[in-house]
Amino acid sequence: MPEFDYIAWLRSRTPAHPRVPVGPGDDCAVLAPSGRPLLVTTDLLTDGTDFILAEVGARAAGRKAMAVNLSDIAAMAGVPTAAVVAVALPRGGRAVGEELYVGIREVADEFGVAVVGGDTNSWDGALVVAVTLFGEATARGPVLRSGARPGDWVFVTGPVGGSIRGRHLTPTPRVREALRLHEVVGLHSMIDISDGLAADLNHILEESRCGAVLDAAAIPVHPDAVELARTSGRPPLAHALGDGEDFELLFTVSAADGARLLGASPVPVVKIGECVDAGLWLDDGGRRRPLAPTGWVHDL
Amino acid sequence: MPEFDYIAWLRSRTPAHPRVPVGPGDDCAVLAPSGRPLLVTTDLLTDGTDFILAEVGARAAGRKAMAVNLSDIAAMAGVPTAAVVAVALPRGGRAVGEELYVGIREVADEFGVAVVGGDTNSWDGALVVAVTLFGEATARGPVLRSGARPGDWVFVTGPVGGSIRGRHLTPTPRVREALRLHEVVGLHSMIDISDGLAADLNHILEESRCGAVLDAAAIPVHPDAVELARTSGRPPLAHALGDGEDFELLFTVSAADGARLLGASPVPVVKIGECVDAGLWLDDGGRRRPLAPTGWVHDL
Repeated sequence: MPEFDYIAWLRSRTPAHPRVPVGPGDDCAVLAPSGRPLLVTTDLLTDGTDFILAEVGARAAGRKAMAVNLSDIAAMAGVPTAAVVAVALPRGGRAVGEELYVGIREVADEFGVAVVGGDTNSWDGALVVAVTLFGEATARGPVLRSGARPGDWVFVTGPVGGSIRGRHLTPTPRVREALRLHEVVGLHSMIDISDGLAADLNHILEESRCGAVLDAAAIPVHPDAVELARTSGRPPLAHALGDGEDFELLFTVSAADGARLLGASPVPVVKIGECVDAGLWLDDGGRRRPLAPTGWVHDL
Repeated sequence: MPEFDYIAWLRSRTPAHPRVPVGPGDDCAVLAPSGRPLLVTTDLLTDGTDFILAEVGARAAGRKAMAVNLSDIAAMAGVPTAAVVAVALPRGGRAVGEELYVGIREVADEFGVAVVGGDTNSWDGALVVAVTLFGEATARGPVLRSGARPGDWVFVTGPVGGSIRGRHLTPTPRVREALRLHEVVGLHSMIDISDGLAADLNHILEESRCGAVLDAAAIPVHPDAVELARTSGRPPLAHALGDGEDFELLFTVSAADGARLLGASPVPVVKIGECVDAGLWLDDGGRRRPLAPTGWVHDL
């Protein structure tokens, strides 16, 4: 138990939230019932894997820990409500703990999330932070991965690839974008791009038992992917298809809804392909080749 | 990402639960609304602090990780429902992961908890496991720490002290005991003994703004405390008052309800003291001395 009660401090700074009567430090946090399905996600981040503490600092680690969980709520078009935070701090790391929680608090505030509890520990190891985030489905229900159908159009909310150059630390979870889209079209399936565009599309296809063809020319390649390609020996498109931690949303809608989005979308979206009966394919100037979930394009 | 998808495996083995429609591997788990307040608790355990992996094995670590969270739900007289599990596995530790999840699964099954999601990571550090557990308040509501009143009788559900000799690894969370007590008496305040009897009673007193006198002769001293006293140089009672991780329940009720419990309690309970206006005291054969939350008894 570290000398400073971070959780009590966090709770004391948590603004009143209609669904979360912040309690007086009991064994559990108490969330008032909302009558809507509760969404729950947890992501654990470790120093050396998800961030390099010595390079980026604890505030950035805290921001990322909250943001990646928010991205999971966004992927189901949920409204984030509350979080609990479990942390293993390097011994003597009071400054680390404070900076970490400042970062968590900043992103939580930005998205209206009440931090309602947690568990802070000191140990001989490196920094570990696990955020468990709660959200509520809207009246339209949560969007699952399993609803894609052949004929659906495939969209992405922004350019992808090369996030390792720094963007992976400061993702903007597409919470508001998901909710706006959920209002105006019927989202058949959705996921956030954490493993990589091809891998995450493959998750949708596996759950939906259908396939998809991506249009190579339509995929929005991030400038970071172009920059990374200068030294990696791989083309920018390979980074766009294979790199992870972009945290843009990947979703499918009916062709009719897709056409409406191309006409007037409430948020930036790019059509990158269409769903088919089976397989994962890349259409490169009319030539259709198998696309591996790793982003690798097989020559036939 | 380790080679084996533990979470998918866990979810595939999770029995159907009325409140938890186990989803098809989406970004979030979805819990159906219950109309009752949701209880949330999280505890993070680390190798070297909460268990010694090399000595006790990963299954014991998994059992403890689930049990200590269940104890927090018990402390509010809640019904545990579901959990998510975030883990950092030592690299190459597939066997560690499997044993850990066997332990988690065993205790979850014993208490009807559905494991609905999680996040499994490999890293260069030691084993870290963070369980976030959900429960529901009963129709009588959650029991808080803040409801003790002067005149209340103070009870404990079992003997305390010396858990470090091994019991701290295999606690029996008093979930059923709490629910039975909640049915038959008005529980004014309750907490589980994790920091130590005196420290946890002090948590109740601080939240309730009252005091208590413990009766030294009435405190049930565990045989482990007696055994530990042989080598520690401290009396068994000091271990009973100061040692942590007993995970028995400490609660207060009105004197009338207390008398009824002494007559016929549905579960084992021991009366150990009474609440007063202020202070924390130990009555040792008629001599009342200040008791520190550490368990230390001050000579006046």
